[in-house]
Amino acid sequence: MTDLHLPIDRAAGRLAAQIAAGFRAAIRSGRLTAGTRLPSSRDLARDMDVSRGVVVTAYEQLIAEGFLLARRGDGTRVAPLARPDAPPPAARQQAWPAEPAAETPPGGPDGAFAYDMWPSQPDLAAFPRERWAAAVRASLRALPNEELGYPDPGGVPALRAELAGYLGRVRAANADPDQIVIMNGVAHGLSAVVRMLVGDGHRELAVEDPTSNRQLPMLDAAGARLARVPVDAEGVDVAALARTEARAILVTPAHQYPTGVVLSPGRRAALIAWARDVDGLIIEDDYDAEFRYDREPVGCLQGIDPDRVVLLGSVSKALAPALRLGWAVAPPKPADRLRTHRAHNDLGAPVLEQHALAAFISTGGYDRHLRTMRRQYRARRDVLVEALAEHVPGVRVHGVSAGIHLYVELPPGTDEAAVVAAAARLGVSVGGAAGMWGPGRDGTAPPALVLGYGRLGESRLAQAAELLGRAIAREARG
Amino acid sequence: MTDLHLPIDRAAGRLAAQIAAGFRAAIRSGRLTAGTRLPSSRDLARDMDVSRGVVVTAYEQLIAEGFLLARRGDGTRVAPLARPDAPPPAARQQAWPAEPAAETPPGGPDGAFAYDMWPSQPDLAAFPRERWAAAVRASLRALPNEELGYPDPGGVPALRAELAGYLGRVRAANADPDQIVIMNGVAHGLSAVVRMLVGDGHRELAVEDPTSNRQLPMLDAAGARLARVPVDAEGVDVAALARTEARAILVTPAHQYPTGVVLSPGRRAALIAWARDVDGLIIEDDYDAEFRYDREPVGCLQGIDPDRVVLLGSVSKALAPALRLGWAVAPPKPADRLRTHRAHNDLGAPVLEQHALAAFISTGGYDRHLRTMRRQYRARRDVLVEALAEHVPGVRVHGVSAGIHLYVELPPGTDEAAVVAAAARLGVSVGGAAGMWGPGRDGTAPPALVLGYGRLGESRLAQAAELLGRAIAREARG
Repeated sequence: MTDLHLPIDRAAGRLAAQIAAGFRAAIRSGRLTAGTRLPSSRDLARDMDVSRGVVVTAYEQLIAEGFLLARRGDGTRVAPLARPDAPPPAARQQAWPAEPAAETPPGGPDGAFAYDMWPSQPDLAAFPRERWAAAVRASLRALPNEELGYPDPGGVPALRAELAGYLGRVRAANADPDQIVIMNGVAHGLSAVVRMLVGDGHRELAVEDPTSNRQLPMLDAAGARLARVPVDAEGVDVAALARTEARAILVTPAHQYPTGVVLSPGRRAALIAWARDVDGLIIEDDYDAEFRYDREPVGCLQGIDPDRVVLLGSVSKALAPALRLGWAVAPPKPADRLRTHRAHNDLGAPVLEQHALAAFISTGGYDRHLRTMRRQYRARRDVLVEALAEHVPGVRVHGVSAGIHLYVELPPGTDEAAVVAAAARLGVSVGGAAGMWGPGRDGTAPPALVLGYGRLGESRLAQAAELLGRAIAREARG
Repeated sequence: MTDLHLPIDRAAGRLAAQIAAGFRAAIRSGRLTAGTRLPSSRDLARDMDVSRGVVVTAYEQLIAEGFLLARRGDGTRVAPLARPDAPPPAARQQAWPAEPAAETPPGGPDGAFAYDMWPSQPDLAAFPRERWAAAVRASLRALPNEELGYPDPGGVPALRAELAGYLGRVRAANADPDQIVIMNGVAHGLSAVVRMLVGDGHRELAVEDPTSNRQLPMLDAAGARLARVPVDAEGVDVAALARTEARAILVTPAHQYPTGVVLSPGRRAALIAWARDVDGLIIEDDYDAEFRYDREPVGCLQGIDPDRVVLLGSVSKALAPALRLGWAVAPPKPADRLRTHRAHNDLGAPVLEQHALAAFISTGGYDRHLRTMRRQYRARRDVLVEALAEHVPGVRVHGVSAGIHLYVELPPGTDEAAVVAAAARLGVSVGGAAGMWGPGRDGTAPPALVLGYGRLGESRLAQAAELLGRAIAREARG
């Protein structure tokens, strides 16, 4: 297939991923322009001498990410998402009084439960202590003295280079090391970006409905007034977003929190079109995107339009929240401002663990650890889903096979708070969805539980599901 | 001496320090009240069965710190600095528009000089790499899984407890672990406190004149309008401070930066009286206070009035800036707000290195490292002072024997910038004082150099002094 210039390395394996990467590069570079019709999967497979399934997988991946569009009777085409040529106009300056900071720091319960299913906690027992300590020691030994001085406030160049490669490979991000700023986790990046937007005169920040309630006090403290935008089976409702005054939105496209849905190809395209329309910004929280179990994870939005998306990620789910190590991948101007933000606040992140992470990625240790965890979490999820089906008749599990939590809709009319309390009495700590809905849905949202399965082994998850079934049955009886 | 209840442990040595600590505790607890006349050094020495020199040393230390007052003909009395009983009234709310952030991040030159005497850089080659890596590994091994989750945003309790003990012992701080908040260095604490003050309606922040120019962009970004207050041989001029509108000041009492003077006992008392008068706050930057060579370091201001002082410190000079590890010791309410600030910004500092530092302090490794560095820095300072006297006639070295920099006044009329440039041409990187003076002193301040001696060995310092002498002689010839 000389026309498409898609080089593949048969010895390296993962042919579908290689083909998808080749298409992304061609679309980004402008070599393949919007609207271009692609060969059928049958023709491309023949031309490249691969099985048709390989091409179908690559096409599906690119469609899910929003790089390609498929319409019945019209074949497969390059989506109209080419990078705009003109730089965005300067943001409008507008006064916006900051609201008072909420006093509640985020955090879960104290862990005194027999079955800790508090959502969003990874398996802390799986943290590779020895390998991490070895990475710290090895990078400290190799470090030039100069690197022990005041750091680059945007992050250690070695780590930014490793992350650019890693995020390009695993998340299909379009990340230049100069556009990466090391932050102390996703929360830190979020707070810094929202403060920047508020300073620029943004009047509202759109968030998904439901959304994580852990970050609400932080968004409030950053001075953001929130516009809630409903989430349905395709992800956030872009038409509803367009009816708000917001020109910036915080989204979780890879695995919506808490519902677990993936932002659909059509919505991806619509969301980016919206951002261009309103001269806005998309903040992409990629919080557990490495954990997809049924297929390749869908690439990030940032890879589609790096000028309109700030991608936030961290090692909190992959390694441990205690490391406080994350990143923002931002368009050039916001990236510069985030770097200056660190220079004006804390002069940058601790250096040694940045080097340790760079070494951990470059030696393949990070990928190996993720593969292990992916197998483990998948098995736990499967056990939990099966046990819930057995012990909780009428329960509906939402979302794709991914992440470290389940969103479980309870039978209509169930008293969610009472179930959470009953479960707690039986020793099972679970989250309710109530606090995750905006004021408009208060009391009308469907009762649901958010179950973290990251920290419990398979047999304990089965036991916890049985106890949950008891708690729900009791409440159903009234 | 039954009346004073000053228990001492003869086997432990350092009797003067023990006696001083006993007096501080008695004054803080209210057991010794303001104005109480103390026994003469001769009488106390006899009663305690120690040599008179021991008591004289203890009294001098406490006078230097502001706990005691000595007047000819009136003996030695407890200073009128007892902790006030009433909590401070709530700070007044006042609008204060933030000024635009400066674009220059702080940072020194790129280190391409043969003789790097850029000020404020510790000896990075002396960082105890192996012992630090071992501390990281050991604390990681001992850590319960729970500690790998999201941290206490105010800092790991084990580290706060160690620091409370360390700062009480070495800096005579009055530090409760609950009033310590772990920050990513002094700059981080400073930026957070100043943002808090600005939010509370503080209209001005007083700073010393001259002061470190590295933190000016950060203070500007935090929204602070600066009032410059002159520094003389006794430290900051409190009478001049009282004529400003400021109700908060940033000071370096242990070793003024850059002039190297120590805040005198009288000025300490006056500064605290001022803070009480205006219902204000003193921000104490304790940046190199562990490095005093000719005597025990003077205790911190915070130990005198913990309700009016925020003490900021870090391991940047003692270990390495790259660790980005520091602390704020604050009155209860500001301490709570700093903790919330971290909860709303980055959810707290990385955990593993907090545990490593706690272990390093508790095992005595930190003290041992400081003792080694003190000997080394002292020798370097002595060599530099001697070599300057030899090679640079007419040069005046300011300040006490402490820290890792010298403030050197050049002969009147010398063109400071020309000397800095001439030194650079000879391969010697030095700082000029020009950027450290406020606008009022622009062009009228005495020409001076700020020489960092932390990073060069003794023989290289002697060579650098000779080159500096040449550079100055050339400029003097014009």
